[in-house]
Amino acid sequence: MTPHGEIQTPVFMPVGTVASVKGVPQDVLEELGAQIILGNTYHLYLRPGVETVRKMGGLHGFMSWNRAILTDSGGFQVFSLSELRKLNEDGVTFRSHLDGSSHFFSAERAMEAQIGLGADIIMAFDECTEYPAERERVRGSMELTARWAARSKKYFEEHKQEVPWGSSRQPSAVSPQQEQTQIPRCARNDKEIWSGNDNSAELSSAGRTNASVPTCAGQTQALFGIVQGGMERELRRESALRTIEIDFPGYAIGGLSVGEPREMTREIVESTLEHLPADKPRYLMGVGTPEEIVQYANLGVDMMDCVLPTRAARHGLLFTSEGKVSIKQARYAQDAGPLDPNCGCRVCQRYSRAYLRHLYASNEVLAQVLNTIHNLSFYLDTMQRVRHSISLGEESRFLSGVRSQPRS
Amino acid sequence: MTPHGEIQTPVFMPVGTVASVKGVPQDVLEELGAQIILGNTYHLYLRPGVETVRKMGGLHGFMSWNRAILTDSGGFQVFSLSELRKLNEDGVTFRSHLDGSSHFFSAERAMEAQIGLGADIIMAFDECTEYPAERERVRGSMELTARWAARSKKYFEEHKQEVPWGSSRQPSAVSPQQEQTQIPRCARNDKEIWSGNDNSAELSSAGRTNASVPTCAGQTQALFGIVQGGMERELRRESALRTIEIDFPGYAIGGLSVGEPREMTREIVESTLEHLPADKPRYLMGVGTPEEIVQYANLGVDMMDCVLPTRAARHGLLFTSEGKVSIKQARYAQDAGPLDPNCGCRVCQRYSRAYLRHLYASNEVLAQVLNTIHNLSFYLDTMQRVRHSISLGEESRFLSGVRSQPRS
Repeated sequence: MTPHGEIQTPVFMPVGTVASVKGVPQDVLEELGAQIILGNTYHLYLRPGVETVRKMGGLHGFMSWNRAILTDSGGFQVFSLSELRKLNEDGVTFRSHLDGSSHFFSAERAMEAQIGLGADIIMAFDECTEYPAERERVRGSMELTARWAARSKKYFEEHKQEVPWGSSRQPSAVSPQQEQTQIPRCARNDKEIWSGNDNSAELSSAGRTNASVPTCAGQTQALFGIVQGGMERELRRESALRTIEIDFPGYAIGGLSVGEPREMTREIVESTLEHLPADKPRYLMGVGTPEEIVQYANLGVDMMDCVLPTRAARHGLLFTSEGKVSIKQARYAQDAGPLDPNCGCRVCQRYSRAYLRHLYASNEVLAQVLNTIHNLSFYLDTMQRVRHSISLGEESRFLSGVRSQPRS
Repeated sequence: MTPHGEIQTPVFMPVGTVASVKGVPQDVLEELGAQIILGNTYHLYLRPGVETVRKMGGLHGFMSWNRAILTDSGGFQVFSLSELRKLNEDGVTFRSHLDGSSHFFSAERAMEAQIGLGADIIMAFDECTEYPAERERVRGSMELTARWAARSKKYFEEHKQEVPWGSSRQPSAVSPQQEQTQIPRCARNDKEIWSGNDNSAELSSAGRTNASVPTCAGQTQALFGIVQGGMERELRRESALRTIEIDFPGYAIGGLSVGEPREMTREIVESTLEHLPADKPRYLMGVGTPEEIVQYANLGVDMMDCVLPTRAARHGLLFTSEGKVSIKQARYAQDAGPLDPNCGCRVCQRYSRAYLRHLYASNEVLAQVLNTIHNLSFYLDTMQRVRHSISLGEESRFLSGVRSQPRS
């Protein structure tokens, strides 16, 4: 349960970088069953700016999205997108990739920004360690992240009441008669507080937890900690223990999918999960392919996000129950069949491969719109089936990946 | 009545250049109440090519659009977009603006292409006379158009049975269980033939006809003639009479909105309409602003198309009941109100000006999608109100334009 609705886990979170899942209107995201979307603090901080979003009632009011939202800490983008970074114990000075302007992010600043943006779940400020890196570099980075995590929590606890869900929020795009349904609503759960959700936690044989994202405390956000430690199992363990000691309502595994081999990712995820409490949400950041999200969900990961479905869609790469389809190929030019015969999304129900190929070849905006809708549908539907499978105790059905498992 | 449904006139036709109204999925067009959309023969001929569209069941099957479609003759784009044109009595040789390849269009080729594309209404091949032009040049061009109109009709009559709506058409993107609803359907009206629709014609005091687009003949297309004649009233009259003599089920006024002053457009439209039969559809090509479509509808024009709502949307220029809004302006950055408080479209019902401004400023694809949906909604809704007003005999209410008439 978040302040904007309950989340069934494991959950895949579509990425809405600057308060928009590129090309997809919010009502379509709802129809697709997106329970929670991700916003990027770094991008939103630069444009439109935290103050604007805060004044519009936070991200929920700003983008008219009444379901849950998670923002990342900004750390990953600061380290991957911005120029002329200068890092010290206090934080990082960087130049905007948009206009070269100079900015400073610290644990406190990242918290301040994320409280202003008002997502349901926010992330501690971390340093995403590069790959490859020397062990001592990884250790230093991990320890810095741990110190920043403590500072993040301290700032958050002192300022969490400043979240823009209160009376200061403004209704967005509302004519009087719609006001009741249009104002971003918080789930009415005021009496409950963030807890380990022990009541509903239910371990499966694969170490899987069915815990939903924890219940919310009187309309404040939930701050999650991030485990770093590079590709060193021992440092990951130490990072997990130090982060848990600070005590967060959920824990993320960061610093993966940064160029390391897939097998290494899996090893680190698996070993790190062992050290994270199964009764709190475990969030694997930035992963992955359809096969991977199934795999990691079955390993016990509760939350994942990835730009792959949306970014691949923009490049005409589509995920289907029969494997990947590169829709730009000439072989589809006169293919009257649906993109995925086993898919119930509005794209597969209406349009042919020939039409999708034409839209892509003609550089039509509708190509991006329809491709993204389908890919998100495939991801969300995949995760829905994982949830169903877990609830039936049939995990093994998914362990071999989705590609060889066409839907019936 | 067309083979793909009845059309209430006056009607505005959104432009779907290459079988897509840029950025808007077909189901949203349906929801907006688009009765008929326009495809550009020149563009479709070049990409994806007529043969591909024909094999997919014509444009209806190809783009999965079961309502009416009109294609232009390709003439306008040949003269405005292509390079190295060479014109003679037979037709025009031109180079593709896409890849420089050489092509030849004539009355016969334009008919062949449009029959293959399979729109409900197709247009005779014409030369769109440039502005300004000497009188003798205008006369020669108008006479060429008249000769091409006769050749267009001859070819069409000999080949109209080749339209791809027959048994050769393929279902598009259809899984077996959806086949019944997904195959492009022709309206069941086999017994009726194209006629002047005298039964339903009803002249209003402003010379307005409420004739719907004529009933169809056993699943063939309707070929409309095009009146040219530049800005010369006498040549327009002569063009109208010569085109009517050839006998078409509908007539278009072409060669306007080519750079002439607005007042001149109006004069020519008004004087030309006098010579066109009021019991057949009268189509003003390429016009106009919201004010103009109201004005011309009230003068008796039945059909209009224009790229303005869709193109302006892509540039952040939005039409509202309170006037034009340039959404990129900083003044909207924290404007929590809806784009148009009097608009019931899904954009105005959900999103704020601040959000739309942010999407545009951030170059998000969703900006184009939402802006286009709103502008089309505004145009289609405007025309809906004109129809309602005409049916109530309250035309004067709209004569002063829409901008000063906020919806209640």
